Order: sequence, then C-alpha cells, then structure tokens
Amino acid sequence: MNVGQAPLSAAEKPYFPVLAVVGVGLIGGSFAQALRDAGCVGRVLGVGRRVETMQLAMARGLIDETVEAAEAAARADLIVLATPVGALAAMLGEMLPHLRPHTLITDVGSTKAEVIAQARVVMGEAIKQFVPGHPIAGAERTGPEAATADLYRGRNVVITPLAENSPEDIARVRGAWVACGATVIEMDGAAHDRVLGSVSHLPHLLASVYVTQVARSVDADARFALAGTGFRDFTRIAAGSPEMWRDIFSHNRDALLAEIAAFRDVLDEAERSITIGDADALQALLTQSCSARRRWRPESS
Amino acid sequence: MNVGQAPLSAAEKPYFPVLAVVGVGLIGGSFAQALRDAGCVGRVLGVGRRVETMQLAMARGLIDETVEAAEAAARADLIVLATPVGALAAMLGEMLPHLRPHTLITDVGSTKAEVIAQARVVMGEAIKQFVPGHPIAGAERTGPEAATADLYRGRNVVITPLAENSPEDIARVRGAWVACGATVIEMDGAAHDRVLGSVSHLPHLLASVYVTQVARSVDADARFALAGTGFRDFTRIAAGSPEMWRDIFSHNRDALLAEIAAFRDVLDEAERSITIGDADALQALLTQSCSARRRWRPESS
Repeated sequence: MNVGQAPLSAAEKPYFPVLAVVGVGLIGGSFAQALRDAGCVGRVLGVGRRVETMQLAMARGLIDETVEAAEAAARADLIVLATPVGALAAMLGEMLPHLRPHTLITDVGSTKAEVIAQARVVMGEAIKQFVPGHPIAGAERTGPEAATADLYRGRNVVITPLAENSPEDIARVRGAWVACGATVIEMDGAAHDRVLGSVSHLPHLLASVYVTQVARSVDADARFALAGTGFRDFTRIAAGSPEMWRDIFSHNRDALLAEIAAFRDVLDEAERSITIGDADALQALLTQSCSARRRWRPESS
Repeated sequence: MNVGQAPLSAAEKPYFPVLAVVGVGLIGGSFAQALRDAGCVGRVLGVGRRVETMQLAMARGLIDETVEAAEAAARADLIVLATPVGALAAMLGEMLPHLRPHTLITDVGSTKAEVIAQARVVMGEAIKQFVPGHPIAGAERTGPEAATADLYRGRNVVITPLAENSPEDIARVRGAWVACGATVIEMDGAAHDRVLGSVSHLPHLLASVYVTQVARSVDADARFALAGTGFRDFTRIAAGSPEMWRDIFSHNRDALLAEIAAFRDVLDEAERSITIGDADALQALLTQSCSARRRWRPESS
C-alpha cells in the first residue's frame, strides 16, 4: 500500500478544462462539486439517462450541461464513470471511438479486477488512458440532491493503476482525489478486491442473508417488532440497492467466496463451542472480536 | 403477544415503599430513577460489589443507601435483579432465606427460559414471587453514570409471567414498567428466547464471528484501514462485553443453534447463486432483505 496525504502544491494540483461525469448521483456529483470548488475543472458535462436526475444536477450546479456519451468522450479531458460496475464496459465501448488521446478516464466502481479485465477487452491500446479508482465513501443517501463537495474530505480513495498507465496520468488522477480532500491509497486490483471483499462485500452479504432469514420465519412480525438498536445498526447495509450489490457480488465472486469460506470456519468454531458448552473457547473468540472492534477507530464508535 | 400501552390510572400506578436494585448500572439505575420520578417508590436500596459503582450511584441519587443482598431481601417490596444472567441464580439463593412473602422480584435478563428454570430450582414455592422481565433497551453506554430516567420511554419491555404468578403481582410489575414509559409485551419464556435469539443474539454472534475472521487474516491491518461506515455499523455490537454475551449464548443455546442453522440455509443459497452465477436468484434474495429492512421502522433508518 502506498498512502499519500500531503496537501498538493500549486504545481501538483491538476487542472482539467472539461470534466465529464457519467452518472451524476451522490458519488459523481460530489466529485464534480469538490473539483469545481478546488479550482481543478472548467466546464462540467453530465451524462445520464434519467431526465429528472440530470435536471436536478443542473439546478444544483453540479454540471453545466447534459450531453450524450459520445459528445462527452469527444470533449472531456477527464471522464469519471460513476455508474454501477455492471454498466461500465458498455459505457467504455460507447465512448471509445470518440475519445481523444490525452483524455483520462477513471471510475468509482466497488470492484476492480473484473472492471479492469473488461476494460482491457473493450479499450485495447487505449487502456493506458484508464486509471481505475474506488472512493470508500458511504452512500446512505443517493442522487444529486445528496451530492456535496465535502463527501470525500478525510475519506480513503483507492486507485489501482495499471502497468500501461504513465506516471504522469496516475499523478493527475491521484491529484484530483487529493484536491477533493481524500487520502489516496494505491493498491493492485486483486488486493483491492480481496480487502473490499472482506470489509465491504461480505458484511453486506451477511446482513442481507440474515434479514432474509428473519423475514422468512413464520413469526417474522413478532421478531421485527422486538428488534432493537443492535438489529438496526447490524442490518442497515441490507437496505442497499439489490441491483448494485448483485453486480458487485458477481464481479468479485472469487474473493467473496474465499471470504465466505473463511467466515464459515470461524462460525463453525463458535457453533461448536456453544454446542458442547465450552465457555472458555467461546469467551476467547468473543474477546478477540471485542478487542479488535474497540481498537478500530474508537472515535467513530 | 399481549401488548399494553395505555397510560396508568392513579389506581393502577403501583407503589413500592422500598425498591432494591441489584446491579446499579445503566439498566438498574435507569429503572430506579424512572420509578422515583414517577412517584412509584419510596426508599431505594442498592446492592453491588464494586465500591466505586455504588458510590457513584449514591452521588447521582439513583439509590439512597448501599446494603448487602440479605438486607435488601429483608427490607424490599420490589427487587429488580440487574446482574448478568450467569449470576442470577446465585443471587436468588442468597436472598431467598430473607425474603418476605409479599416481596416481588423481577429481572432484566436477556434470556428467560434458563433463568426461569434455575429460579424454580433455587426458589421452590417462592417462585410465585418472581415475575421475569426483559427491557429491550440499548446499552452502548454502561454504568450508573449513563443511567437516565428516560431510558425506557417508548421502548419495549417483555415480561414472561409464570403460571405461579398472581394476576395482581403481574399487574404490579407491568405497572412499574409502564410507569417508566415503556410498552409492555407479555410472552412466554420460550417465545421470548426464540425471538430474541433471532433479533439480538444471532446478530451479535455473526458480528463477533465476522470481526474475529477479519482480525485473524494475514492482512488484517490493510482490511481495518479500508473499512468504512458500513463496516462500522455492522460490527458495532461486536464491541459488547464478552462475558455477558458468553452467558447469553450459553443460556439460550438451543434457540440460538436453531437460528444459526436457519441462517446457514440462506447463506448456502446465496453462496450457491454466487458460485453458479445465478444473478436472478441472487437479486431475488437481496430484494427480499432490502424490502424487509426498508419496511422495518423506516423512521429509525
């Protein structure tokens, strides 16, 4: 891991005369606004299918105009793809014929290895213009109405540069995120997917499986009626978009399956301790998780 | 389930000249303060081993004096046992020889069937004086310093009356909780344990197993460093007291094991969908959990 947090000097701060944002929701809209506030962009183009979303993004000043993907590709200096990971390859294919040679593309997808593999197939030699990224920023709220220039301040953004990327292009994408106030971490795509498979995708799967199990029980109403604050926090992520998470799980299949297997090993161990009444082993396991959780950023409880 | 929410008439409001609180932490201390504010108690006795805790409870006015368990049993009209479930039976045994015939005992334990079984063995005929209870109230903070008269306002409290309890005694314990602002739900002990095993104990076990699995991974530091708000909420309960949860899991073993088995069935199903790439089945499962979670008290997100 290569972490960079130092503020940018004026010479390091990138400038993109035209930024194109594909998908002007919370993530894409906040990136545009933060770059605009930092003085890193001139004109901002928005690409998206839903008319109301684009109108709202215009009204909020997140974008200056709405254009088709082909026009965005032809005019932009930096393109950020903020669409679900399942839609990235098709969008790259649509843009490729119009792309200028100096234009940089980055994305915000929650998985990287599969996105990169698909991008290589679609883009061919132009793959060198794609510097993949993933901001680790919450998304309880969605849409352009939730976008804010502060979203990435103090948050981690992973970029997973490719061997084909030039150091200058990597630095420009890194610089854009640093200008948004983020801490940029460089990892390779496989490491990213393993780590995010562990700390993001597996919790989402477990919370969803758990809520489904409760919902299917014959006394589900009595259960939900007595669920308290522990249940509330534990299951909050299960309310996320089924389509988005289906794509993430599919994209990151191998890493996620490995995490599920490792989780099952510890579940087996806990279940065995409960079954045979081994209170010491059970307490040792609970002590390990309690200590680890209390050590983890105690300031955020 | 038998739910009672109507405010108490003056005639229904119980009065206990002497209340004894065994374990003057968040739960016991808040009960005492709420009953005092409601005008339901005269003198409040505190029982506990840690000198600093008892001094703090005195300083905060939660209790009027600190006494031994035997003296509390001899003087109190209502005794609330707010100790860990693993310690309840021993405390009942200590109090029994001194207990007056009219004195009521209730508890706040997170499991009921095992507590009741142990109480029957210890108390014999006096079991009729024990009306078991369980307030569903969060405990992110602990200790008498966190106690507040408002803790139970608007919260659910389950009471699991016994066949031996008189209707009058049940009404008095119910009335005490209603006076604290709580909604009282009557269930039998086995139903309580099944429901709480599902919405409280299983989430705690899964969060603990999950955090332990992450903590044991070779790249645990990189994982914790990239964990975000989803991880934070999903794992918050894993920071709870290992000793308390060990006792709860042991006490509620059978119900918890049944829930683990049901959870595994759904996990198997999700894993199979991911493995074979059945996107429709995966999305159907995620949609079920998403819908159920969004329907559940949306106001509390």
